[in-house]
Amino acid sequence: MTQATASRTATASFKGLKCKECGAEYEPQALHVCEFCFGPLEVSYDFSELSRTITREQIESGPNSIWRYRSFLPVTSDDPIDVGTGMTPLVKSNRLARRLGLKHLYIKNDAVNMPTLSFKDRVVSVALTRARELGFTTVSCASTGNLANSTAAIATRAGLDCCVFIPSDLEAGKVMGTLIYGPTVMSVEGNYDQVNRLCSEVANTQGWGFVNINLRPYYSEGSKTLGYEVAEQLGWELPDHIVAPLASGSLFTKIYKGFQEFVQVGLVDQKDVRFSGAQAEGCSPIAQAFREGRDFIDPIKPNTIAKSIAIGNPADGVYALDIARKTNGNIESVTDAEIIDGIKLLAETEGIFTETAGGTTVAVLKKLVEAGKIDPDEKTVVYITGNGLKTQEAVQGYVGEPLTIEPKLDSFERALERSRTLERLDWQPVLV
Amino acid sequence: MTQATASRTATASFKGLKCKECGAEYEPQALHVCEFCFGPLEVSYDFSELSRTITREQIESGPNSIWRYRSFLPVTSDDPIDVGTGMTPLVKSNRLARRLGLKHLYIKNDAVNMPTLSFKDRVVSVALTRARELGFTTVSCASTGNLANSTAAIATRAGLDCCVFIPSDLEAGKVMGTLIYGPTVMSVEGNYDQVNRLCSEVANTQGWGFVNINLRPYYSEGSKTLGYEVAEQLGWELPDHIVAPLASGSLFTKIYKGFQEFVQVGLVDQKDVRFSGAQAEGCSPIAQAFREGRDFIDPIKPNTIAKSIAIGNPADGVYALDIARKTNGNIESVTDAEIIDGIKLLAETEGIFTETAGGTTVAVLKKLVEAGKIDPDEKTVVYITGNGLKTQEAVQGYVGEPLTIEPKLDSFERALERSRTLERLDWQPVLV
Ligand SMILES: [Zn+2]
Ligand SMILES: [Zn+2]
Repeated sequence: MTQATASRTATASFKGLKCKECGAEYEPQALHVCEFCFGPLEVSYDFSELSRTITREQIESGPNSIWRYRSFLPVTSDDPIDVGTGMTPLVKSNRLARRLGLKHLYIKNDAVNMPTLSFKDRVVSVALTRARELGFTTVSCASTGNLANSTAAIATRAGLDCCVFIPSDLEAGKVMGTLIYGPTVMSVEGNYDQVNRLCSEVANTQGWGFVNINLRPYYSEGSKTLGYEVAEQLGWELPDHIVAPLASGSLFTKIYKGFQEFVQVGLVDQKDVRFSGAQAEGCSPIAQAFREGRDFIDPIKPNTIAKSIAIGNPADGVYALDIARKTNGNIESVTDAEIIDGIKLLAETEGIFTETAGGTTVAVLKKLVEAGKIDPDEKTVVYITGNGLKTQEAVQGYVGEPLTIEPKLDSFERALERSRTLERLDWQPVLV
Repeated sequence: MTQATASRTATASFKGLKCKECGAEYEPQALHVCEFCFGPLEVSYDFSELSRTITREQIESGPNSIWRYRSFLPVTSDDPIDVGTGMTPLVKSNRLARRLGLKHLYIKNDAVNMPTLSFKDRVVSVALTRARELGFTTVSCASTGNLANSTAAIATRAGLDCCVFIPSDLEAGKVMGTLIYGPTVMSVEGNYDQVNRLCSEVANTQGWGFVNINLRPYYSEGSKTLGYEVAEQLGWELPDHIVAPLASGSLFTKIYKGFQEFVQVGLVDQKDVRFSGAQAEGCSPIAQAFREGRDFIDPIKPNTIAKSIAIGNPADGVYALDIARKTNGNIESVTDAEIIDGIKLLAETEGIFTETAGGTTVAVLKKLVEAGKIDPDEKTVVYITGNGLKTQEAVQGYVGEPLTIEPKLDSFERALERSRTLERLDWQPVLV
């Protein structure tokens, strides 16, 4: 934390907001929609000065958090809200790689991101820093769970009031993981897309900073750090192929932007990185559009255990689609059963317990490898975005049971014998 | 991970095992009890060469994990099992400090330790590295939950077979957080002390490496890193006072040892650090002995929600007692209700969601401050050892409920008005 001061002298490159569709420019206020064409606004930067001055060493000597990249982020403060977010492990995953027949597989493990164990801590750290700069005293969000956890926890540390909105059918761990920080929690009887629409109305009436609505242009930039970190952790080099989950599509587009910016300022060499996206079959509007060759998204009503990525009307879906196509990647979907298998596969090979979104991503990785859509020689990075302790319901009943024994040696030995017999039966060919 | 190689040239200071009571020396095998006096064995080191060569810079340039301190740990491998464990945040906790009336309060936050979100990842990383060196192919443990999570996850990464033993009344999150990695799980109908006794018998018959039994001398050394890291993160300086939970008492004694070793090799200046310990009233054999001025522990039968520290017959209790007394510290206990308040207090002030052990520690911190047993001017470090997502049952029913609304603006506005009224009632003096 004390290291945060190290980046104080870094150049700020952040200029204003710009419409992604028509290019109209705006002051860097709490705005997210273009008033001319209703396109989404994005933060604009001038990297020309940064290109001349930034070095790898300068970044490496910064704090061990996303704030080592402060000059690439849309904040002006010298003291951003640094709760240790980011710089999560990039795990060389040899055991999973062998199981799938890959040679160079890495897991970017945001299941252990700080403080609330999902990649949302990145975007919220940026959004709340900007919210404070813009004078907001109450922050809010429309969330599928992880974002509510993160907003509530980081608001507490920053001394901001907090009110979050969630669909009423969320997993218990996500609700508890929000309530514990003491925010106001609105449980909305509807799906995420309905929650999101309601929040857009509330944003217009309450004067609150909604991290993923009126602060969305700043918020979403936090995901670029998932691109920066992978490049740095690979030894200042881009991977050949990335696989990431698709909810709104924002994460996917920002990893892409992160890679591009590092090339632009000369921190890494240009490389054609293939971008593949993962959806749950029960909420796969982007995968459907990809399969059908459409360049628009047909909104759908979600029905999947992967609730954290169950967005039926994804705001950045068309941009994600475009990136997957132009990088020669793929967008694939998997069933809930495959998602559960994906969670177990990752845990049993790499000791990483991820939530349903991560199970989706691992399952899609497997599906793409089996279909020959990932080359075994490609340096492939898979983004794991959340922790399995928050979605325990999803795997309950699919992970076996403990063997109950008495506290006696013979009771243990009988149970051990029984379990070994079962294992043998499991592995031997069945002769009928 | 790739940085692990940085410490390759570090001096190994680890020599053998030595009885803590009679001083008898042993080869560094899988032994934990002295054959002469039945005292516990401890790892012995010769730090004379290290004292001459070790520098702060050398450690700072090591991996961002416990393995930056490899030359202080009982392993010989050049490639220890590095799963990113350690170097968790030391959080300057201004909001909690203000609430309690302290000036310099820090939280050492192992609730976000990698990979399984408790300090046990430290001891298991060391134990499994040593287990591999000693040729074990199956590893095991007697656990109150966190240790089982950690052993199962890290064994998976290390390619070791794993069988864990837990009491049958554990929290759901701890059971799921073990099963997911696919080990054999023995659920023992008894309390932790019974589980532990059974495991001692099994260790003698199966030839397995029990991390906290026959590998205990190596295992417990991992906790020293909680001392080293705090010293380094405070800018190479010791704190004035530490507060840590007491289960077996091992963690407490090893933080003490860590500080001493850093003084011994000249990395920090000598300082009198006060050591205070925290227990749950429903399992407080060490606190009782402290209160009553005894130098022996009366084993008790645990009955508390703080299951992860519910050890009725603590192996290192007398050593913990001795340290608290000779450093002018205290050992205090708190009720289950105070533990729940402690969890909420930490979450609401610092955005850190801890499990019951952490709630115990925060509640004891509060109690000691209120009793004038911690000076507001002391630089105080509180050790938070585990994550609240694993013990959600403990706070269920004590954190309020979400406000259920329809996805409509007027439904939201009515709910907001209602919640504000409730808040006002909460804060106003009640006039009867
Ligand atoms: Zn426009
Ligand atoms: Zn002895």
